[in-house]
Amino acid sequence: MESTKYVHGYTSRESIRLNDQANTLEEIIHHDTIFPKGSLILEAGCGVGAQTKIMASGNPGSKFISVDISEDSLMEAEKLIRSLNITNVEFEQADIYKLPFKDEVFDDAIVCFVLEHLNNPVHALHEVMRVLKKGGNLIAVEGDHGSAFFHPDSEFATAAIQCLVQLQKQKGGNANIGRELYPLLNSVGLENVSVSPRVVYADSSKPHLVEGFTRNTFTAMIEGVAQEAFGSGMMSKKDFEQGIQDLYRTAEEDGTFIYMFFKGSGIK
Amino acid sequence: MESTKYVHGYTSRESIRLNDQANTLEEIIHHDTIFPKGSLILEAGCGVGAQTKIMASGNPGSKFISVDISEDSLMEAEKLIRSLNITNVEFEQADIYKLPFKDEVFDDAIVCFVLEHLNNPVHALHEVMRVLKKGGNLIAVEGDHGSAFFHPDSEFATAAIQCLVQLQKQKGGNANIGRELYPLLNSVGLENVSVSPRVVYADSSKPHLVEGFTRNTFTAMIEGVAQEAFGSGMMSKKDFEQGIQDLYRTAEEDGTFIYMFFKGSGIK
Repeated sequence: MESTKYVHGYTSRESIRLNDQANTLEEIIHHDTIFPKGSLILEAGCGVGAQTKIMASGNPGSKFISVDISEDSLMEAEKLIRSLNITNVEFEQADIYKLPFKDEVFDDAIVCFVLEHLNNPVHALHEVMRVLKKGGNLIAVEGDHGSAFFHPDSEFATAAIQCLVQLQKQKGGNANIGRELYPLLNSVGLENVSVSPRVVYADSSKPHLVEGFTRNTFTAMIEGVAQEAFGSGMMSKKDFEQGIQDLYRTAEEDGTFIYMFFKGSGIK
Repeated sequence: MESTKYVHGYTSRESIRLNDQANTLEEIIHHDTIFPKGSLILEAGCGVGAQTKIMASGNPGSKFISVDISEDSLMEAEKLIRSLNITNVEFEQADIYKLPFKDEVFDDAIVCFVLEHLNNPVHALHEVMRVLKKGGNLIAVEGDHGSAFFHPDSEFATAAIQCLVQLQKQKGGNANIGRELYPLLNSVGLENVSVSPRVVYADSSKPHLVEGFTRNTFTAMIEGVAQEAFGSGMMSKKDFEQGIQDLYRTAEEDGTFIYMFFKGSGIK
């Protein structure tokens, strides 16, 4: 069985970060995550429920079954969803490579920020497809860390980002998977595959994005692997910290920060 | 006086490339280039008229004065515009650093793919602002070669792109200027500056973009500096050619190519 090692860890700061990210990106990524009334949706890899709360509240007429490998994340997700009085989600512990469902039971399925962490995303997609009805939509959302660029440019910041890319690779994942969604979804036999880029462009005329994305989502994520990055000798502590400082620099008055997510879908 | 050295050269293949580019990008970049009826518009740096034809035909109620430093480009632009029976454009040879117009005569002004080639874009923007009426819009459109990423990834392709970035830098330009539009437009005192990213995302479900952008715009542009790149020893001929081959590889069935333009505007 494939292992799943989650590069960002399971700390409570990380769970705040994931919710900050989801709130900021709600409009960019999920404005068009709309399912037909009465449909049964599988969310494979729900984590702490950051995407779940957006999709479930945006689709009150659908029922969600949200699964994750981590019991701790599921408990947190459940707490979050209950605190928001969202009633159309059921949580269940499950391995994405071996889902505890019969064939063709779900109307649609969605996988958000999960494939990047798997060492066999094709296998996982096949398993999600197995439980999807014929004619159902499979939606996948992923980022791509190779898409990040910014002003002022900084080789230290670029190197710090590369540390996360390398660490994720060592754990069997792929932080640059966004650009590959199109061939990935095609490779499992989905039809009418379509991928759309979702850009986050932050400058000081958009303070909510500078705060919510540049600082609290992206830079916080890179900061989150600091110990591992200089602990493993990938980068010196001094250079890594310079990289983080340079990323925060892009959040200032004259800075800009750009990142791209990809949302893809195909029909079984 | 600042010099302007145009990194892409003035060959006829280049002029075909610029028109291919403009046709493909018309919708992405110019769907919202709309000027009020009766307005007088300055297009500073019109080149061979690739943007001129789109803007002038899209705004038949406006009059355009399109200027360029190169007499040859202007002749070609004029030929193109006449061949299309577009009658609302006047061409004039002019230096963007010293425009032959009185203060505050234009209602709006637009500068497309020009700032990247200048060694003093701030000076040029000040000069364009001088001839712009108070309350008029200044629009700038630029690419950013640091925004390019693709699947399959290739260090040779990345290095070949960097050759163009370096060559443009040696000529006083900045191929990565797109990310800087926001601070640039602010730095000359424009108000309500707003920048929007314009993504080109090409995969094989979008054959017109694969052909028109990945192959005929971007890869052709990098190929265009081949002699200079390996002539100057930046990269070996073999490695550069591998880079070009890898860029064409991204245009195949399972490849993807992503690039970002930026369109910014501010009010005088």
